Amino acid sequence: SNADTGPVLYGYAQITGSNQFGTHGPEGLIFGAHRIRLGVKGEAVPGVTYNFQYKWDGAYVTSPLNKTLGVSSVPGSSSGVQEAEINFGFIPAFQLEVGKFRVPLGMERTQFSGNNLWFIQRSMNQSLGADRSAGAAFHSPDVMGTGIYYKLGIFDNHSLNGNNAFNSGNTAIPFGAGQSGVGMAPVGGVLSNGSGHYLFAGMLGYKLNPLLNVEISGARADAKQFTALAASKNITAWNVGARGGLMGLKYMAEYSADVSPNGIEGAREQDWYVALAANLHEMTLTPDWLDLEPAVRFEKFRMVNNQTGVDASLANTTIGLNYYVNPNNPHAAEVQLNYVVPTQTAYWRTHRVAPVNGYIYNTLALQFQAGF
Amino acid sequence: SNADTGPVLYGYAQITGSNQFGTHGPEGLIFGAHRIRLGVKGEAVPGVTYNFQYKWDGAYVTSPLNKTLGVSSVPGSSSGVQEAEINFGFIPAFQLEVGKFRVPLGMERTQFSGNNLWFIQRSMNQSLGADRSAGAAFHSPDVMGTGIYYKLGIFDNHSLNGNNAFNSGNTAIPFGAGQSGVGMAPVGGVLSNGSGHYLFAGMLGYKLNPLLNVEISGARADAKQFTALAASKNITAWNVGARGGLMGLKYMAEYSADVSPNGIEGAREQDWYVALAANLHEMTLTPDWLDLEPAVRFEKFRMVNNQTGVDASLANTTIGLNYYVNPNNPHAAEVQLNYVVPTQTAYWRTHRVAPVNGYIYNTLALQFQAGF
Amino acid sequence: SNADTGPVLYGYAQITGSNQFGTHGPEGLIFGAHRIRLGVKGEAVPGVTYNFQYKWDGAYVTSPLNKTLGVSSVPGSSSGVQEAEINFGFIPAFQLEVGKFRVPLGMERTQFSGNNLWFIQRSMNQSLGADRSAGAAFHSPDVMGTGIYYKLGIFDNHSLNGNNAFNSGNTAIPFGAGQSGVGMAPVGGVLSNGSGHYLFAGMLGYKLNPLLNVEISGARADAKQFTALAASKNITAWNVGARGGLMGLKYMAEYSADVSPNGIEGAREQDWYVALAANLHEMTLTPDWLDLEPAVRFEKFRMVNNQTGVDASLANTTIGLNYYVNPNNPHAAEVQLNYVVPTQTAYWRTHRVAPVNGYIYNTLALQFQAGF
Repeated sequence: SNADTGPVLYGYAQITGSNQFGTHGPEGLIFGAHRIRLGVKGEAVPGVTYNFQYKWDGAYVTSPLNKTLGVSSVPGSSSGVQEAEINFGFIPAFQLEVGKFRVPLGMERTQFSGNNLWFIQRSMNQSLGADRSAGAAFHSPDVMGTGIYYKLGIFDNHSLNGNNAFNSGNTAIPFGAGQSGVGMAPVGGVLSNGSGHYLFAGMLGYKLNPLLNVEISGARADAKQFTALAASKNITAWNVGARGGLMGLKYMAEYSADVSPNGIEGAREQDWYVALAANLHEMTLTPDWLDLEPAVRFEKFRMVNNQTGVDASLANTTIGLNYYVNPNNPHAAEVQLNYVVPTQTAYWRTHRVAPVNGYIYNTLALQFQAGF
Repeated sequence: SNADTGPVLYGYAQITGSNQFGTHGPEGLIFGAHRIRLGVKGEAVPGVTYNFQYKWDGAYVTSPLNKTLGVSSVPGSSSGVQEAEINFGFIPAFQLEVGKFRVPLGMERTQFSGNNLWFIQRSMNQSLGADRSAGAAFHSPDVMGTGIYYKLGIFDNHSLNGNNAFNSGNTAIPFGAGQSGVGMAPVGGVLSNGSGHYLFAGMLGYKLNPLLNVEISGARADAKQFTALAASKNITAWNVGARGGLMGLKYMAEYSADVSPNGIEGAREQDWYVALAANLHEMTLTPDWLDLEPAVRFEKFRMVNNQTGVDASLANTTIGLNYYVNPNNPHAAEVQLNYVVPTQTAYWRTHRVAPVNGYIYNTLALQFQAGF
Repeated sequence: SNADTGPVLYGYAQITGSNQFGTHGPEGLIFGAHRIRLGVKGEAVPGVTYNFQYKWDGAYVTSPLNKTLGVSSVPGSSSGVQEAEINFGFIPAFQLEVGKFRVPLGMERTQFSGNNLWFIQRSMNQSLGADRSAGAAFHSPDVMGTGIYYKLGIFDNHSLNGNNAFNSGNTAIPFGAGQSGVGMAPVGGVLSNGSGHYLFAGMLGYKLNPLLNVEISGARADAKQFTALAASKNITAWNVGARGGLMGLKYMAEYSADVSPNGIEGAREQDWYVALAANLHEMTLTPDWLDLEPAVRFEKFRMVNNQTGVDASLANTTIGLNYYVNPNNPHAAEVQLNYVVPTQTAYWRTHRVAPVNGYIYNTLALQFQAGF
């Protein structure tokens, strides 16, 4: 946990093998690395904790490969600082967090790290969120033992990570005039002036008991920027989620809705999913040394644009099986197998696009994970 | 210290919030990350120490953001190896250091790391120095207990880091003919031939007692390179500095002068500053748990070019307040607040340029630091 | 070793100085960093080990230098994930390895890491191999105590690292149709479909005793790809090697041959070398504190192309001297000095090209290494 006093080194890697079917083109198994992370966390001094995480995601790609392929960048390759957060927890019910961290929007996004997901990919609602940004937040994981938790944050007017509703040319430029990032160097590598526009996000949750955790969250960002399109609009996002479990049986469900995602006038997006997992080991249905967990998720994503008349949905049914090598340390060595059956794929296949984390062809995906 | 026998992991992150005033454009608070560092140091075998430091500076920016902004690179974003030094200390008075490390030029530059600066930004004299380069140096931190220290270095004919007098198209190309970096691959990733031109730097200092540490340093680099401009000139840089303190009161002052910075014929640059800091906790003027340190710096930078007739100065007055959460481990968790008032800004605002670390608009800057 | 239970942090840096002679151009000493590595390895849970290694090679170059030089990339600069391997060793004679790791081809390539090479550069046969790729392999380091070892691997149809026979525009594209890397984003950063073409590699070796270790290995990859040239061919590579030693005297020899390297029709390449090293310390010919090791290697590389009529050879004679500061921990602090005399250089100098690791001018190279 973040409260460990020493610098604790942690990390993990995910090696994947995938194959799609019905693409009417070359098909076969492809290997890759999903997430490769290294982090350090600990307590700087009593009351102040830190968590710095570096990433080398999509590491199947190296610069020489880029050159070979004759393209300047290959999808998925991404390295840098994933998280850099400093927390001042002097008052437990009113803690201050600063840095680059998760915008408090979405239950799966904020409660599950990349190494403890039920399925290889998060749900498609990731594209309706804001991922991570640079900012500050007040928060508490449990207000005075009531089971209530909250986080209220202010961020630069965009998401630092791509592929979501808050990262867009309509909205993203976070800096203002003077010595900022446009036309004149910042001071010593630090951007010196903002745009006066912010991304605000808030989350409120309640953990009643293991059976029920409910949560509501929302975020908004100004579209008005000096390079914005005339028609760009403020972005609003909402999410409600519920999860819980008992004796190895777990459920999670979320509904998300965005107005003007990416600042696009007339656009709306919605997503909902229901996921179930049954840990046969916790249910004592398997031998003591065998930790298997079947899981299933049904998700539906919908994108509407009043201006263009587009109204496209995509459904993904994911059937999964998780195998934890050691039940006592399940995420240290883990194998995950997913088979995804997409439906309502016509629009997406025609336009050769897909929502984030959404499959538009039948896909078998296998992932090996080891961590420390 | 570098003499620790095991590999010691160290690092820190700096989260910033800044706002400029009077820019006649959009203004507001902007968040960011200044320096994010991870390092390993220790003793390889008795007598041989190492220090490798990696950086992810300007981490508010990730590749996806770059794409969103539609620019190929955003100022400040910089990652890579900050330091890679191996030291052979068999003879204490005559030690050999090789690798990428600080060119011995400038008191603040060489004596203060990024995580123990008095102000959020170093002084503007950074642009008159050479930052880091690849090379070798003989040195001693204290010659036979006399308080005298020195470092004499030879480096490739340029600075590896940008934004200073020794990094320029007039001077920087360090490699020669044959299997070097131009036109033909080096051997196994190693540049195989130099240009026969070098950056030489030397420093001599004396630590009399806590009240007085004086130091003089200088460096020169050849401008003559096979791609040089006809008018490019050798670069010469000088620095004198003094610092000291007693019972929580500290002072530091430097004067720097360059001839032909960046190899530009007819150019000269000068800089001087005086800085004071008063640690109220060491002065026992605050309660035992409160470690506050007001600080102030006045600095003046001047740039002259005989060829173009430019003669522009810039003054920065910085008022600071440092708060160390734990007086026993001050840099592990630290908050720094600076307000900078620039004067003589006309030339710089008109030309939309600024010396490194120099502010040309009134700026409020706040920095949170945590490290281990 | 990989069997350590905790996360073990390891790493090293190599600082170089080189000078070429007879180039008929500017010559001089040039400094640089060869390999700078940081890794974590350990046992995730009993039976599952991991090894993740990150690199910042060619670190004499930073982004600002790139800009200074006015070029978009400088040879040798390379950072990213060097290795990301997870090993399932439940059955010692039949272990499964997945991730990014060395293709089992070539004795020096697979048995010697970058920090324990006899010479500063590997032999030129590196260009006839496949370096690292993403895939899976079955292997055993010693089948039931017989001294026999093997590895059989399947990889994406190319080498992830450049400058070798299996990395080429004729062969490299590893992905197929659907949600792969061409034209449409992969899912959550993971490539989702392969091309149905693979790189297969196998190695079989026998360690009789310290005096003799023999090994044979081979690999092949399909050239047929949807962007392939009409004339591109499947690549085949073979390698036989032998090594051994007694009381400080060591030898190693390899012969390698490729058909259609890089998928080029009509091309063939061969390479052979013999290397000797004599550790004077192990031979007790030096004082106890002095660990010196002279070494010599003669290597000959030949490239033939039936279509173009090219038939060019290059010979490199390398004379080396290794100095280990501490005989008990030789690679923790090491200095290597090499002088290379190339012959048959006419073709290469005229065309301004060189085989990987091949010198075409007389070169003096010095390397300082420290590690932990």
